[in-house]
Amino acid sequence: MFTDEYFMKMALQEAEIAFEKDEVPIGCVVVSNNRVIARAHNLTETLNDVTAHAEMQAITSAANFLGGKYLVNCTLYVTLEPCVMCSGALSWSQISKVVIGARDEQRGFINKNLSLHSKTEIVSGIMENECSSIVKEFFKAKR
Amino acid sequence: MFTDEYFMKMALQEAEIAFEKDEVPIGCVVVSNNRVIARAHNLTETLNDVTAHAEMQAITSAANFLGGKYLVNCTLYVTLEPCVMCSGALSWSQISKVVIGARDEQRGFINKNLSLHSKTEIVSGIMENECSSIVKEFFKAKR
Repeated sequence: MFTDEYFMKMALQEAEIAFEKDEVPIGCVVVSNNRVIARAHNLTETLNDVTAHAEMQAITSAANFLGGKYLVNCTLYVTLEPCVMCSGALSWSQISKVVIGARDEQRGFINKNLSLHSKTEIVSGIMENECSSIVKEFFKAKR
Repeated sequence: MFTDEYFMKMALQEAEIAFEKDEVPIGCVVVSNNRVIARAHNLTETLNDVTAHAEMQAITSAANFLGGKYLVNCTLYVTLEPCVMCSGALSWSQISKVVIGARDEQRGFINKNLSLHSKTEIVSGIMENECSSIVKEFFKAKR
């Protein structure tokens, strides 16, 4: 039951909430022991704040829940590959695992030759089409 | 009067406040038209939040002051070279200028071959010794 698809679907629901708010539709959840301890979606326009990416909010929220700044035994499910800022934050958090929906060749951290913390396992391509489609649809509507 | 040293001294004062709180002593200010519109110091321990670097807080605070997410005509003065996370945030902010006190060869963005926004001018080495000394002193006391 608790597959990567199961939790990525929740991240995608967060992305859909962002879409409805006219925000770039990216969402994520943080899971610890099969329990969702944080969920967030991009809010850069609503909050007028470039730092309000889904991942940044989820990291802060999960740490708050855990009462410690390191996200030990936690997995982040995010619909789009994290940017440089978010990859840096994930590195500092020492999170155990990051599961990515769709790649972001242009703005994602992987093509910048950045890595996360040495402890962090990275999985990519979970529900890739759905995660990619919602972003494409958003920008198509904007044009 | 409004030299780079003038504002870096204010950033250093923020670093000193962090030091007193037993936080890694890094501080910054954001200046617009020779007016300080945001000031912050590292609060990762106090807030239990790896994202609470001085620069992240200052970017959010300055955008809040300006009522827009882009830090046009703004300069960030920061005592230590920004990390990957903070360089990513500064890129998104399209800030006009970043003035760095001391370099951080290990964790700073420059040696990771990252760049800021194409609009952003970077100056480094302002009050380098003072900015570097306070961090060294902090870690020496920790050992």
